[in-house]
Amino acid sequence: MASPSSSSIDQVSWRASVLSRHLQQSTDNSFQSLQSSVCLQYSPPELSEKFEFDVREMRRLLDDHNFEDRDWLMGLMMQSNLFSPRNSGGKVFVSPDYNQSMEQQREVTMKRIEYLLDRGVFKGWLTDRTLEGEMRKLTLMDVVTVFDHSLSVKIGVHFFLWGGAIQFFGTKRHHDKWLKDTEDYKVKGCFAMTELGHGSNVRGIETITTYDSNTGEFVINTPCESAQKYWIGGAANHATHTIVFSQLYINGSNQGVHAFIAQIRDLDGNICPNIRIADCGHKIGLNGVDNGRIWFDNVRIPRENLLNSVADVSPDGQYLSEIKDPDQRFAAFLAPLTSGRVNIAGGSICSSKISLAIAIRYSLTRRAFSVSASRPEVLLLDYPSHQRRLLPLLAKTYAMVFAVNYLTKVYVTRTPKTNKSLHIVSSAFKAMFTWHNMRTLQECREACGGQGLKTENRVGNLKGEFDVQTTFEGDNNVLMQQVSKALLAEYISAQKRKKPFEGLGLEHMNGPSPVILAQLTSSVLRSTKFQMDIFCLRERDLLKRFADDVSQHQAQGESKAHAVLLSFQLAEDLARAYSERMVLQTFFESETCHSEGPLKNVLGLLKTMYVMICLEEDASFLRYGYLSIENAAAVRKEVMKLCSELRPHALSLVSSFGIPDAFLSPIAFNWVEANSWSSVHH
Amino acid sequence: MASPSSSSIDQVSWRASVLSRHLQQSTDNSFQSLQSSVCLQYSPPELSEKFEFDVREMRRLLDDHNFEDRDWLMGLMMQSNLFSPRNSGGKVFVSPDYNQSMEQQREVTMKRIEYLLDRGVFKGWLTDRTLEGEMRKLTLMDVVTVFDHSLSVKIGVHFFLWGGAIQFFGTKRHHDKWLKDTEDYKVKGCFAMTELGHGSNVRGIETITTYDSNTGEFVINTPCESAQKYWIGGAANHATHTIVFSQLYINGSNQGVHAFIAQIRDLDGNICPNIRIADCGHKIGLNGVDNGRIWFDNVRIPRENLLNSVADVSPDGQYLSEIKDPDQRFAAFLAPLTSGRVNIAGGSICSSKISLAIAIRYSLTRRAFSVSASRPEVLLLDYPSHQRRLLPLLAKTYAMVFAVNYLTKVYVTRTPKTNKSLHIVSSAFKAMFTWHNMRTLQECREACGGQGLKTENRVGNLKGEFDVQTTFEGDNNVLMQQVSKALLAEYISAQKRKKPFEGLGLEHMNGPSPVILAQLTSSVLRSTKFQMDIFCLRERDLLKRFADDVSQHQAQGESKAHAVLLSFQLAEDLARAYSERMVLQTFFESETCHSEGPLKNVLGLLKTMYVMICLEEDASFLRYGYLSIENAAAVRKEVMKLCSELRPHALSLVSSFGIPDAFLSPIAFNWVEANSWSSVHH
Repeated sequence: MASPSSSSIDQVSWRASVLSRHLQQSTDNSFQSLQSSVCLQYSPPELSEKFEFDVREMRRLLDDHNFEDRDWLMGLMMQSNLFSPRNSGGKVFVSPDYNQSMEQQREVTMKRIEYLLDRGVFKGWLTDRTLEGEMRKLTLMDVVTVFDHSLSVKIGVHFFLWGGAIQFFGTKRHHDKWLKDTEDYKVKGCFAMTELGHGSNVRGIETITTYDSNTGEFVINTPCESAQKYWIGGAANHATHTIVFSQLYINGSNQGVHAFIAQIRDLDGNICPNIRIADCGHKIGLNGVDNGRIWFDNVRIPRENLLNSVADVSPDGQYLSEIKDPDQRFAAFLAPLTSGRVNIAGGSICSSKISLAIAIRYSLTRRAFSVSASRPEVLLLDYPSHQRRLLPLLAKTYAMVFAVNYLTKVYVTRTPKTNKSLHIVSSAFKAMFTWHNMRTLQECREACGGQGLKTENRVGNLKGEFDVQTTFEGDNNVLMQQVSKALLAEYISAQKRKKPFEGLGLEHMNGPSPVILAQLTSSVLRSTKFQMDIFCLRERDLLKRFADDVSQHQAQGESKAHAVLLSFQLAEDLARAYSERMVLQTFFESETCHSEGPLKNVLGLLKTMYVMICLEEDASFLRYGYLSIENAAAVRKEVMKLCSELRPHALSLVSSFGIPDAFLSPIAFNWVEANSWSSVHH
Repeated sequence: MASPSSSSIDQVSWRASVLSRHLQQSTDNSFQSLQSSVCLQYSPPELSEKFEFDVREMRRLLDDHNFEDRDWLMGLMMQSNLFSPRNSGGKVFVSPDYNQSMEQQREVTMKRIEYLLDRGVFKGWLTDRTLEGEMRKLTLMDVVTVFDHSLSVKIGVHFFLWGGAIQFFGTKRHHDKWLKDTEDYKVKGCFAMTELGHGSNVRGIETITTYDSNTGEFVINTPCESAQKYWIGGAANHATHTIVFSQLYINGSNQGVHAFIAQIRDLDGNICPNIRIADCGHKIGLNGVDNGRIWFDNVRIPRENLLNSVADVSPDGQYLSEIKDPDQRFAAFLAPLTSGRVNIAGGSICSSKISLAIAIRYSLTRRAFSVSASRPEVLLLDYPSHQRRLLPLLAKTYAMVFAVNYLTKVYVTRTPKTNKSLHIVSSAFKAMFTWHNMRTLQECREACGGQGLKTENRVGNLKGEFDVQTTFEGDNNVLMQQVSKALLAEYISAQKRKKPFEGLGLEHMNGPSPVILAQLTSSVLRSTKFQMDIFCLRERDLLKRFADDVSQHQAQGESKAHAVLLSFQLAEDLARAYSERMVLQTFFESETCHSEGPLKNVLGLLKTMYVMICLEEDASFLRYGYLSIENAAAVRKEVMKLCSELRPHALSLVSSFGIPDAFLSPIAFNWVEANSWSSVHH
């Protein structure tokens, strides 16, 4: 780890070493210069920036758990040529070669997985169900994402989708047969849910499975082109088995969507009889994942291959289920998929951290324009506008890191009672964080200028690699609507029951509505009470407005479902309000555990910046009068002030992400040397 | 052209043919189906959507000029295998193969240029200086952009940057020697302005040129690594010559930035002595352009290679210039580069049109979720939320098409008197339109779900290809600040002169401030007077606030330059207000030339949507009280209403873009067939 050490002695010696490396480089320069004025030189930001809090302590707060596992896996990747180490500017960077064709990227991704497998990275991922095992697995997934999203998605499909389906939809017979072999990659799994014609609307899929009691087999069939399985990660090249989602017909009546295990390739990689597979083709990112399409031509599988945790079919063809209501049965099927959204929320923030670390480091070494002719050019991050572009995103990213840590804990300790709340929070965070990431990446890319376009610099490239997150595992817009619909249902039911809210985070609505002071001074804006109050006020008011709007539409004769569709704008505003309040709460909780001191002070600045930027960006506050015009002006002023207060901590804050230099990029370090003639391969 | 014909008889027969093709396809289906319910079928939107205005007439309004040239070049590209025609879903699409490596993409881009050259596409681009010739050139550039941004950028560098520099910075000796050869690609030009250390701040470049009167030569030198020329399109592989921007030292004193011609490769493609070239490497898009880096090791060029329209050096080494002030000299150098911003603004809207045509066509054929169990799934564009996502962007794009047409006219008819205004408008439009495009692409990509990620579907891929536009030829944020600084200067000078505003579009500020009605009904919101008034009100108020804010900072002891930096938020708000008002004005002008009728009615809807969405999205209206809370609510309601009013015209509106089917993508047409097993290459 290159991040500076916490003890001040260490810090001094570390700075001295940076300085001496820097001076050494300078003596190599033998340029002919016609003028006395010196050309641009790279100066490491560590030489000029201060570290006013303990970066290692902050890193522990952010990473939260499994620190050694993190460092171990980072190290494993840095040690292998498979991870494409490249020398640039006197440093080694690992990062996939994105100038490779789709076919090459897929092969090297598979090889990387085999390497990690051999080193024991996946040990226990499906067989160790302890809390420690779960945390280790989630940590290692996160670290893989730092290197490459294709790699983590391909691993995720195998372990979380294929493996998770067997764990959660299957029973002992499936666990015994598949989990160990999956963990060892003796089988390679994929997950065939989405079809050409149906993505977010899983209930509408058209694949059909019937039962043949003469042979004791299920028969899976793709009845038409729109029913072909689509986007199936692993299907195009590597997977040997798949989970198939299908409508199950028993005696001619549809029992709804069920999941089956089918083999699609033999151990030599040949496609099985009655299976047809085609490629999804080249994508704008994630080309290391071999997405494919599958057609089933009356494929016969043993009865035992039905994943029967929720429902089963007896040998003589009787349909058996504890859950009689098909809606509830369907919900039970999808509930375990929450892990996908937890991973996605985490992965998106991982990407935001990388891009901010790179863009902020660059902005501390790149200069442009002088304010007056005699003065040197100004560092990008010393422009108030540049601070305004990057520092609020940094504060949001910090807030979301705490939220991801919270979500992870809720996930690994979930119970049937917390499932509903987990579903809502994970949906809201998945949508909000992946959008935040896309926006952060775009801003960071532009903030790096043309350098942001070079794939070696990662920032711009991450856009293509992570774009998929906004629509897979539930389209973000659909998820936002679902969050608000769930809150609405809770609201209506609480009113009917005349009981207080409980369990979904709406407890704050049990008390009286918070009152916001007429005049917001800086110290009020920075107070915990105001911050929570204004977020709660917005949320409860929007929920009420949403409920009113829907019932108004219903009063005009619209069906409830259609009324909700018509109120989509309030629904989206509400889901945002809900999510941002939840995030803030996790920030408070992470902050309060901490003792007073410089670290807590900076956390306070970040938290206030998070609140202020939410107030500034969501027009709801003005639109519905939660903030007066004068108070909105005070908020804007506060954002500016916070930018200049956070500016001195910018380097420490991105150093605290603890991302090893090798996983950042050349422009984050000595980009003059990295671009020098001597570094060109001749 | 596949767009429907205007006469109703033609339209009937055309629909009949669509229908019969459709039915024919259906009979080919021989799927085994276990249920009576039919699987998803593709239905062409032309069968269900109405055409209520004359699409061909709308297309003429949008394309404005050189219709035959457009169709001719589209046809040329469709006819050649070099443009990678591919069959999909019974249609042929042309589009680069983005799964090719950078090296392959560069070579095929060069071959495409040679093909177009052979067909006479570039005839007159530099030798025909008539108005017709200019319009033809700009039209053809636009058409090339529809196919591929790499192709248009590579052509643009050669003709507009290299060729333009010779035209505008050079004099007769340069014109005679280079223009014809450039037009015939006997020389291949590039344009070395940007350096590793300096992009937007051109005045800070570090390349140094001196004059040797003994030999009558200039000596160009790269004194240090940060002075290496960077991002030079064409330099890595193909260019033989370059324009070099450099500080010119005469007798030890710096005369500022000047432009020179230097040869970098011989006719066999070997790099010339004292020239070093390296590659910029793989990028997130535009890999068909061979961006390179150049070092000059005391390269000697003849004295005549100074582009001497602004300044010259006599054989004995005297520096001669009519313009004594170095600032003015520098401005004179850069003024002709406005063509770049005009092209970029046009190209970005071109990209928005493609993506909207694809996303809207897809949303008229793709269904998801049923509102009630018995009913079929709902077309994406029948969701109010989906309308809200796409139709305001469509209206903005229409408005910007008219603005681009206006900008083009101002550009080709420019005079020294209009140069300043042209500079400001082109800067504002370049920034605003390229941001609009990136946002439109992202929304369209998400609106297409996973299909938006496949490069063959274009929408997502255009993001990587066009991303460069937000930062090249002037970083957007820098341009926005420049616009506001220019407006501020005009404001201050008008106050000092006590004369009315003239020439920069601020004339509306000469009259009294408009008064907005207290209660805005739908009909007021749709009135021309209100629409222009509210935009003018915002602009004049923001300009005044910006001026006040800057002088307040100055009063607190800040330098003027720093005061402007501190007021960056008002500066950006103002530049947006200026740009949106200018765009609206061009919309009014395009609309008023038109006679009453269905087409004009739809234009009216689009124009009102444009205004409403600007009102909705810019928080300034609430923040500074141009709109009351009640009126902002009325605006939001109006946006919803306009969405449903524009919905029936969605297909006609994107058909009016006149983009041949071949330049759209498989999901814009029969995507079920395009994905069928029979279409897979076995």
